[in-house]
Amino acid sequence: MNRNIRVEGSKATPVAERRIELVERKGIGHPDTLCDGIAESVMRELSQEYLDRFGGILHHNTDESQLVAGRSDPQFGGGNVVQPIYILIVGRATKEFDGESIPADTIAVETAREYVREALENIDTESEVIVDCRMGEGSTDLKDVFEPESGSAPSANDTSFGIGYAPFSPTERVVHDTEHAIYAKLREDIPAVGEDVKIMGKRDGDTLDLTVAVATVAKHVDDLDAYISVMDDVEEFVHGVASDRFDGEVNVAVNTADDRDEGSVYLTETGTSAEMGDDGSVGRGNRANGLITPAREMSLEAASGKNPFNHIGKLYNLLASELSNDVYEEVDGVEEASVKLLSQIGSPIDEPQVAAVNVHTEEGVTADEVEYEVGSVIDDGLEDVTSITQRIINGELGTF
Amino acid sequence: MNRNIRVEGSKATPVAERRIELVERKGIGHPDTLCDGIAESVMRELSQEYLDRFGGILHHNTDESQLVAGRSDPQFGGGNVVQPIYILIVGRATKEFDGESIPADTIAVETAREYVREALENIDTESEVIVDCRMGEGSTDLKDVFEPESGSAPSANDTSFGIGYAPFSPTERVVHDTEHAIYAKLREDIPAVGEDVKIMGKRDGDTLDLTVAVATVAKHVDDLDAYISVMDDVEEFVHGVASDRFDGEVNVAVNTADDRDEGSVYLTETGTSAEMGDDGSVGRGNRANGLITPAREMSLEAASGKNPFNHIGKLYNLLASELSNDVYEEVDGVEEASVKLLSQIGSPIDEPQVAAVNVHTEEGVTADEVEYEVGSVIDDGLEDVTSITQRIINGELGTF
Amino acid sequence: MNRNIRVEGSKATPVAERRIELVERKGIGHPDTLCDGIAESVMRELSQEYLDRFGGILHHNTDESQLVAGRSDPQFGGGNVVQPIYILIVGRATKEFDGESIPADTIAVETAREYVREALENIDTESEVIVDCRMGEGSTDLKDVFEPESGSAPSANDTSFGIGYAPFSPTERVVHDTEHAIYAKLREDIPAVGEDVKIMGKRDGDTLDLTVAVATVAKHVDDLDAYISVMDDVEEFVHGVASDRFDGEVNVAVNTADDRDEGSVYLTETGTSAEMGDDGSVGRGNRANGLITPAREMSLEAASGKNPFNHIGKLYNLLASELSNDVYEEVDGVEEASVKLLSQIGSPIDEPQVAAVNVHTEEGVTADEVEYEVGSVIDDGLEDVTSITQRIINGELGTF
Amino acid sequence: MNRNIRVEGSKATPVAERRIELVERKGIGHPDTLCDGIAESVMRELSQEYLDRFGGILHHNTDESQLVAGRSDPQFGGGNVVQPIYILIVGRATKEFDGESIPADTIAVETAREYVREALENIDTESEVIVDCRMGEGSTDLKDVFEPESGSAPSANDTSFGIGYAPFSPTERVVHDTEHAIYAKLREDIPAVGEDVKIMGKRDGDTLDLTVAVATVAKHVDDLDAYISVMDDVEEFVHGVASDRFDGEVNVAVNTADDRDEGSVYLTETGTSAEMGDDGSVGRGNRANGLITPAREMSLEAASGKNPFNHIGKLYNLLASELSNDVYEEVDGVEEASVKLLSQIGSPIDEPQVAAVNVHTEEGVTADEVEYEVGSVIDDGLEDVTSITQRIINGELGTF
Repeated sequence: MNRNIRVEGSKATPVAERRIELVERKGIGHPDTLCDGIAESVMRELSQEYLDRFGGILHHNTDESQLVAGRSDPQFGGGNVVQPIYILIVGRATKEFDGESIPADTIAVETAREYVREALENIDTESEVIVDCRMGEGSTDLKDVFEPESGSAPSANDTSFGIGYAPFSPTERVVHDTEHAIYAKLREDIPAVGEDVKIMGKRDGDTLDLTVAVATVAKHVDDLDAYISVMDDVEEFVHGVASDRFDGEVNVAVNTADDRDEGSVYLTETGTSAEMGDDGSVGRGNRANGLITPAREMSLEAASGKNPFNHIGKLYNLLASELSNDVYEEVDGVEEASVKLLSQIGSPIDEPQVAAVNVHTEEGVTADEVEYEVGSVIDDGLEDVTSITQRIINGELGTF
Repeated sequence: MNRNIRVEGSKATPVAERRIELVERKGIGHPDTLCDGIAESVMRELSQEYLDRFGGILHHNTDESQLVAGRSDPQFGGGNVVQPIYILIVGRATKEFDGESIPADTIAVETAREYVREALENIDTESEVIVDCRMGEGSTDLKDVFEPESGSAPSANDTSFGIGYAPFSPTERVVHDTEHAIYAKLREDIPAVGEDVKIMGKRDGDTLDLTVAVATVAKHVDDLDAYISVMDDVEEFVHGVASDRFDGEVNVAVNTADDRDEGSVYLTETGTSAEMGDDGSVGRGNRANGLITPAREMSLEAASGKNPFNHIGKLYNLLASELSNDVYEEVDGVEEASVKLLSQIGSPIDEPQVAAVNVHTEEGVTADEVEYEVGSVIDDGLEDVTSITQRIINGELGTF
Repeated sequence: MNRNIRVEGSKATPVAERRIELVERKGIGHPDTLCDGIAESVMRELSQEYLDRFGGILHHNTDESQLVAGRSDPQFGGGNVVQPIYILIVGRATKEFDGESIPADTIAVETAREYVREALENIDTESEVIVDCRMGEGSTDLKDVFEPESGSAPSANDTSFGIGYAPFSPTERVVHDTEHAIYAKLREDIPAVGEDVKIMGKRDGDTLDLTVAVATVAKHVDDLDAYISVMDDVEEFVHGVASDRFDGEVNVAVNTADDRDEGSVYLTETGTSAEMGDDGSVGRGNRANGLITPAREMSLEAASGKNPFNHIGKLYNLLASELSNDVYEEVDGVEEASVKLLSQIGSPIDEPQVAAVNVHTEEGVTADEVEYEVGSVIDDGLEDVTSITQRIINGELGTF
Repeated sequence: MNRNIRVEGSKATPVAERRIELVERKGIGHPDTLCDGIAESVMRELSQEYLDRFGGILHHNTDESQLVAGRSDPQFGGGNVVQPIYILIVGRATKEFDGESIPADTIAVETAREYVREALENIDTESEVIVDCRMGEGSTDLKDVFEPESGSAPSANDTSFGIGYAPFSPTERVVHDTEHAIYAKLREDIPAVGEDVKIMGKRDGDTLDLTVAVATVAKHVDDLDAYISVMDDVEEFVHGVASDRFDGEVNVAVNTADDRDEGSVYLTETGTSAEMGDDGSVGRGNRANGLITPAREMSLEAASGKNPFNHIGKLYNLLASELSNDVYEEVDGVEEASVKLLSQIGSPIDEPQVAAVNVHTEEGVTADEVEYEVGSVIDDGLEDVTSITQRIINGELGTF
């Protein structure tokens, strides 16, 4: 068993201490995130269907769905979606196995429609969304069925890598939590707040500027005054969430593209800009940890929708995040950890080409001193790699 | 005002007295009829939307929808639709008028989904149907708005014709009523009976052979014995309906393509063959009177989905049927009447190029003797042509 | 061997002697005819591919293609197609047989593109047409392969009928030949003449009114004067063709919807109205004999694209036309003949449920007198039914 | 004029000196790169069309195209593409301006088809590719036309950022150049080498492992022996290119997923895996500098297809690369530079929220010492930002 673990100390200034830091998060209702959510939920349903039927997961990947924006005519108090949003589910699935037909396309369409309905409270999926499907036929040999209970690691589907780090910097924490709070709490209190939220955090020294874009829901906004009042509430709310998590000055700007004098504000019928001109794709938004963090190492792989048992672009990204966190939490003296895992197509996924760990240690601790302990954490994590699969299917591990 | 009415006596043997007569009807759940129904319901909703917004009907035609069959794996007691039915709504609609956006595509998608759900009791429109839309932009000038209340006849959209006749022959009556009875009554009593029914009537002298194809609904059919029992019930039911309307021998054959020994019978998940291999199109099935009658003069125009105010392919077919019926009912001595109306593109629809009437008169009555009276009926009907429009929108006049 | 042949004398006035007669033909470039042509050419290529690979024809039907019109901005001297024409190939084909993959979709796309390029001289298929394909998977058992050389008749795919008649009336001859002459000759002489031609003939007594719509090709028409000159040439040409074939007065009206004062004339970039708002479908235009003839008995089946060996909607329509012609040509005393063939699903195609022949005999000849001879012709034709298949594949028998 | 330039010294170990380095490049024929190339070429053609017609560029973005893989049956010596590759062009374009129609969809389809034909030498675009288009309508006000010659900077379309760095590390140089050399040279010498190449470089200390996947073209590979010979040639070629650029051990592994004993090797009909199961999207592959470099800061924006005058996701990524290079080349003492540019939606693009520069200086040089000079280079670059637009349209600046 060769894990190829390499541990190296980092001399780089930790992200939180650099002068400039940029962090972004696209909310649940953003067109790209919608695609991620659809892809991931279809993957989960298919995996479950395969497990129920055959006791194992068959080959599939649904990580290429595409959203083509609609056209709308939003009006204070409620207008119209003029042309529905078009969502094309793309990917591969095993549709026949062991003489049995599997209704993969039917499941995909139903799951996608349901996901959209749940993600966007104000959309009417009967009229405002078209879900189409051009999913190809994948094939699974009898020997290729992944049986989670067998415990043996499958072979990597590709030569690819995954990357993770821990912990979040304060700026990352703010951006991440703010969107979650808007979605989970503010939306409940203020029905005019839609699900399409985008937050850009720029920290310059210890000043944090948050630029927030929030789609409002036209039927819950009677006029411009009401809109302005919602904007004020959002600003106050975001300021509160951020100030709890950041020691420094916080500035919040909401919907800066509005031109209130012209009456041109961010009004939507459905709560998402997908209704009017903003297309979306899987894998173009948040990384598996929910953020876009240019100062961190990132993989470009779309984790969402990929199969949960041997697709490196999913597994290794989720695993690398987990391992980083384990190192950070379990190894004394480590202030920041990042993990890169590189697979070799055809080799077992618990034997990467390389498992490279960068650790930023406390003053007085060297990388050499923690090397053994870090290595053990990584080794254990790789040993247990197949447990990730079940947690993905259960929805315990998110990809966006 | 020039109606160009021509009345001519027919020397042909009435259809009912010829040796051989063929009559066919495709039921509500047949793929072609589904397309007709979708096209017509979308047309009605759009017309109503235009009326509500602008007090007049704007240019549109939705007579080109296409159904691409799905794939299914029906099993006694219930199996799966493996790949959803794909329905593409094609046509034109005015999407912007007088500075206002009209949600034509949204209405079309919603209406089509609703129509399918109502027409097919056992389909799950969330998973088993994809409704897509590629409806082009028609344009309407201010002067082209059709205001039903104005009473003035619009100009014909095309050089085209419509055809009708009355009354139904006994064979036609049987075929027409049998499908209706299966849909309206038998289906209530026997849930295993689906909506996709096709009836072919062949009369040879005074023997009527009815070949009936009925899709059964798998989840309501436990096994082959249950299936056979359903077939027996259908046969008995059809025989009863037919015998009430036909003086002569009636033979009924149901699902003749079944091979019971091989276990190959007409089982479906959804009640329609559209789930498995049978595509459908607007205008490929029943004529506006609900039948396919090769012994009669027929127009090939798809009446369903065409706009209800100046599309000759719709208006003249419906009007010709109405006028035939009026002549038959109101003019003494007429045993059978058929009407052909030919428009000239750009001329008012109440001034056809020709309104040709064929009458088969009772013995002792000549065509000349009824010519004046027939002409009056036709003249009155053309005078009142715009009333047809409102009745179409109200759903009082069917097209399939 | 039971042919179920029924011969009956017709008392109806022959079509040519009735007062009013309507005949229509949609030209090669009409959107409906384009769909017919695509469907039929794809069917031919697939049949040939099956024959080449397996020595037999496998299950397929491509009779459901749909054309969604584009959008154009035609200008004298040449403008633009703004949005391409979208053609969706729908149908079924056997894509795997005896362990071998058959590139049915690839063949369909290539054949359709090639057909369009050849049918429309002025279209640029690289930019002005999108050919898409959603062809389902049909399946063929080993025993279902149709081997033309075996000589044994396959079983009917459906309970359906086909209809034919002979000879053409003078009006029918005129309408048929005029479109052919415009396509084959006039277009060569006058490049401004497009392929989308529609001819409506109305005979009232011995006056024939021809309403002709001809799409012109913008790049070959410099201005309104040039357009008017083309119209004059078309009118003169049509008048010439018609007068050679019709003894009576002939009136020709070309592009009657034009409003020359407003500069609104029938100008296109590509020679077809499909570029701007006119959708098309298989089977909505000409019958298998190339005409739309409401005064004749007609089948509504789309003959184009259906498989050439056991699809009744194709075979019986072509066969009935052939048999009518044979009866008319070979049996003395017959002035007009029509044939209706009704199949029974599952029975051999050379044993119809009924083969009903109507004959209009010369004065002095009774139907009884020709019954035997007519029956022999029909019997021979049914005996030789499988020869139709090869002639269809060779392109000797047209369907539009 | 506020450029908000911030210069900071980097204490991080330069990438080339860290123990582990991962670098990847997806070649021209990879499905993701194909999408990038299509998106970018459509953008260029549209920009040029707008310039030619109106002297300015109108609103458009074509950065969302999606490729749905086909299905193929590759055979030594040549097999078949069974189902064509489906490419859906998604995005927005201004289709009407100043009363004039712009054939944006037609241009998009034509350009995409041409791009595919040129990128993939062995594909038959008539049969093996379907290019579809669902491009929405963007709108451009008169005042929003970008006129390159005006010299004034347009407003940012979004709050977003771009990132660049210079110079390439040796490993980056090797990965980048190797793919280029295979595409430009090896493919000429060995026709069996396809365009779908993927190179993964893993440097561990001074050992560089290159994992190369190369699609081969079936018709140019007669049998397994020929295939093995091609593999040997590729390995030797790659080794040569890499060794010229890397001082250390180089190991090359080609098509490691092959199972030669089973006869399962990387054979394609067209030279790309898009023919069989590998979907593609814009922006999922290489960054604007042609590489995937997890150790570097990266933007997740898809640069390809975005409009070239105010879309930050394109402009700032290209500009940041340029500026990094300028700093590296023009400022003495700078060994490595990276630039991050953050826009504010609605503000002029030459006035970023922040222009953050990280410099790694030579020993003995401090960041403070070069700060002024670095700032000047950045200031000049921002001053000249609009020149980027023209260079993009001319194809001088690539995005993949």
